Amino acid sequence: MNISIIVYIIGWILEFESAFLILPAVVGAIYGEYKSCAAYIAVSLICLLCGYLLKRKNPRRSELYTREGFVTVALSWLIMSIFGALPFMFTGEIPNFIDALFETASGFTTTGASILNDIESLSHASLFWRSFTHWIGGMGVFVFIMAILPLMGASTMNLMRAESPGPSVGKLVPRVKDTAKILYQIYIGMTVAGTVVFMLCGMNLFDSLTTIFGTVGTGGFGTHNDSIASFTPLQQNMITLFMILSGVNYTVYFCLLRRQLKEAFSIEEFKWYIIIILASAGVIIWNIHGMYPSLSEAVRHAFFQVGSIITTTGFSTVDFDMWPQLSRTILILLMFSGACAGSTGGGIKVSRLIILMKSVKKELSMIIHPRMVKKISMDGHTLPDETLRSTSAYIAIYFLLMFASILLIGIDEFDFTTNFTAVLATFNNIGPGLGMVGPSHNFSIFSPFSKCVLIFDMLTGRLELFPMLILFMPSCWKKY
Amino acid sequence: MNISIIVYIIGWILEFESAFLILPAVVGAIYGEYKSCAAYIAVSLICLLCGYLLKRKNPRRSELYTREGFVTVALSWLIMSIFGALPFMFTGEIPNFIDALFETASGFTTTGASILNDIESLSHASLFWRSFTHWIGGMGVFVFIMAILPLMGASTMNLMRAESPGPSVGKLVPRVKDTAKILYQIYIGMTVAGTVVFMLCGMNLFDSLTTIFGTVGTGGFGTHNDSIASFTPLQQNMITLFMILSGVNYTVYFCLLRRQLKEAFSIEEFKWYIIIILASAGVIIWNIHGMYPSLSEAVRHAFFQVGSIITTTGFSTVDFDMWPQLSRTILILLMFSGACAGSTGGGIKVSRLIILMKSVKKELSMIIHPRMVKKISMDGHTLPDETLRSTSAYIAIYFLLMFASILLIGIDEFDFTTNFTAVLATFNNIGPGLGMVGPSHNFSIFSPFSKCVLIFDMLTGRLELFPMLILFMPSCWKKY
Repeated sequence: MNISIIVYIIGWILEFESAFLILPAVVGAIYGEYKSCAAYIAVSLICLLCGYLLKRKNPRRSELYTREGFVTVALSWLIMSIFGALPFMFTGEIPNFIDALFETASGFTTTGASILNDIESLSHASLFWRSFTHWIGGMGVFVFIMAILPLMGASTMNLMRAESPGPSVGKLVPRVKDTAKILYQIYIGMTVAGTVVFMLCGMNLFDSLTTIFGTVGTGGFGTHNDSIASFTPLQQNMITLFMILSGVNYTVYFCLLRRQLKEAFSIEEFKWYIIIILASAGVIIWNIHGMYPSLSEAVRHAFFQVGSIITTTGFSTVDFDMWPQLSRTILILLMFSGACAGSTGGGIKVSRLIILMKSVKKELSMIIHPRMVKKISMDGHTLPDETLRSTSAYIAIYFLLMFASILLIGIDEFDFTTNFTAVLATFNNIGPGLGMVGPSHNFSIFSPFSKCVLIFDMLTGRLELFPMLILFMPSCWKKY
Repeated sequence: MNISIIVYIIGWILEFESAFLILPAVVGAIYGEYKSCAAYIAVSLICLLCGYLLKRKNPRRSELYTREGFVTVALSWLIMSIFGALPFMFTGEIPNFIDALFETASGFTTTGASILNDIESLSHASLFWRSFTHWIGGMGVFVFIMAILPLMGASTMNLMRAESPGPSVGKLVPRVKDTAKILYQIYIGMTVAGTVVFMLCGMNLFDSLTTIFGTVGTGGFGTHNDSIASFTPLQQNMITLFMILSGVNYTVYFCLLRRQLKEAFSIEEFKWYIIIILASAGVIIWNIHGMYPSLSEAVRHAFFQVGSIITTTGFSTVDFDMWPQLSRTILILLMFSGACAGSTGGGIKVSRLIILMKSVKKELSMIIHPRMVKKISMDGHTLPDETLRSTSAYIAIYFLLMFASILLIGIDEFDFTTNFTAVLATFNNIGPGLGMVGPSHNFSIFSPFSKCVLIFDMLTGRLELFPMLILFMPSCWKKY
């Protein structure tokens, strides 16, 4: 294990976090919240100093093997969350460390689950920081670093593989650095477009920015206690649009930018993503239309909620825990599916489900025609056995960890629906669940131990299981 | 598709069912229930006639390919359940067809989920038939036929593979027929031993027989409204013992019979099965000991319930839905795990979980040492890739079907815990769930549509997914 390079990269991460923390300080200064402003500047300086100390010593060797890449990413996200939690404690808004860490990890992992009872009592600086952590975590901090720094050689692919969602990381262009740049250009483009659209719909700049951070990052932290319910129908529909756009595989946008329309719309995952959204919203509209005065209102809430859950954003316009069981069950299933790979959304990902369905079909065909040789292909390419095997392992670990977490937080004695959906909502980076963690409740009810389990679930879910798990393998730390 | 041989075998199945139906008729005669006796004789004659008509024509070709084996088994189980449901309708005890089919499928699949509110109002003949269906379904009707009939050639393996639980069917001895014989000898031995032990503990013959049928078949139908609660503590402990013994891989008994003690106790699945039972019962004892007057009572209920759920029997001595959430969560996890492969229990099976855990460990090791070549082995043998792949496919289908079922029965608008555990309890052939389908409730609350979904789940779960699913593959019915 090349410890020196891991320390060096974490140093860089802290330098970047220091820079990110300037923004909420500026927001605090604008709104005259000088105490908050001072807290953010103080933490920014702490990050700067710690980062400087860690990256003072150049690494002995600059290559980064797979396991080092995974360890670096896992530790960086943990450390980023710990430092990002400090301002909440310094301002006294979330005095408890575990709570502050929960809120920050929930932000960076774009979960959007909160332990706050009264969000509106926060300073503008802290509200901005909460939403901004979504934006940083959405596309990923390593992708960001790679886009702007000539950090390392070709082995940076191992960092990106550990941080980017999906069963296989597609390099859009041959060089990792250029891929990262293109991804961030699309990401920033969506953010700017969203801000402009929201402002045209009558939102103020602060709400527009915080909302679009939570939308394109598929996070879900809002600035109002009722999430998105107090926005106008037009604004809600625009948020729905940007949520669904944010759950699309970025390869689609890349193809569109290159005017490869046919390629863009023939991506299997994209097609299924749209089909799932339309089908789910359709059934929910049929199921809930009697609960709302007009059909258009039912349509709006159904699409908003389906978009919010499948992209694992977690905004809400209504308390969907009040919806009939069928609609709630659909939302629970969407929590599992998640958005497209290569998007900012969490969950199992539509492409993994497609691979699974194809494996199942293959397995059944093998019984009918035992001597048939059949390869599984996607978008015209045969999937390598490695992808199939790691997809299966992913699903297995996914359920094992989920059930272990449900067991551990079961000690708190809440009902099964609450525990089940709390784990589902954190593990898939969604935010609200059902029952005691439904849209009109929050996660403050859990014990510190359960909160730690859920923090672990959020980080493990965001980094797609393997990077966090590898930290617990003794053989990972052995010299070689 | 060789339809003629499928029809021929189903004919044989009905002949056997006709013979089985004589037993409850005899019981009815003994207890002077002449109406029930007549109903069972009538159905027995119907089966005899239908069976005769179906097997009149000899099959064109006697080989049985994999898909034909699977189709035969799936259809036979469905037809067996339909004919087995007739007596309940003829006696008027369960007049509704869907309800009677639910009860019978629940019996044959050793689920033990009931739609009856008052079990004790049934005639002795019907109580006996309910429990006897567990015994028939436990080891499997095809295994029975193979043990006593020289039905077909070597291709009978395909029938046994479709009916026997576990990721790979181990032939204990080279010939299928002899393997089937040995399995039934052990099965009958356990049944006789259990009956004697129960009678020595003070049960009457009728209770001893019906209880042992439900125990060695891991079924769970009782003859009392409170399941096993009214039996004495000693009797309950003996039932616990026989339940746990019935969940053991029969290969262990085969080794013991051959005095291969070392081989028997070194079977990995057996070791883990015992470890899981001890660990689960330990935590539950710690969790519930305050609820009962003495520690010994807590120990008795904990071991009974753990044994009942992990073997997917489904008997209960207490309403475990009243236990704390941690204990209930453990029971839910045990519902997933199930017993050993090669036993009469249902569920995912301990061996599949071991294979999964090993795959996960391998996958993590591959990240640390990418160039390592590592094979997964169990009990000293390297597992073929086919077993690994079909285990993964099994798990994937398992969860897909489970979630689809939860979605479908969600239309009935019961709470999530009820729906989730109802599907879990039928799919894994356990019996009771939690909430509205907990030990003190039953499945009569569901709509006919939901009952059909759950009947499908019971059959699919018992036959380990593939045989039932293949019926829905259009390519299965194509000529070749």
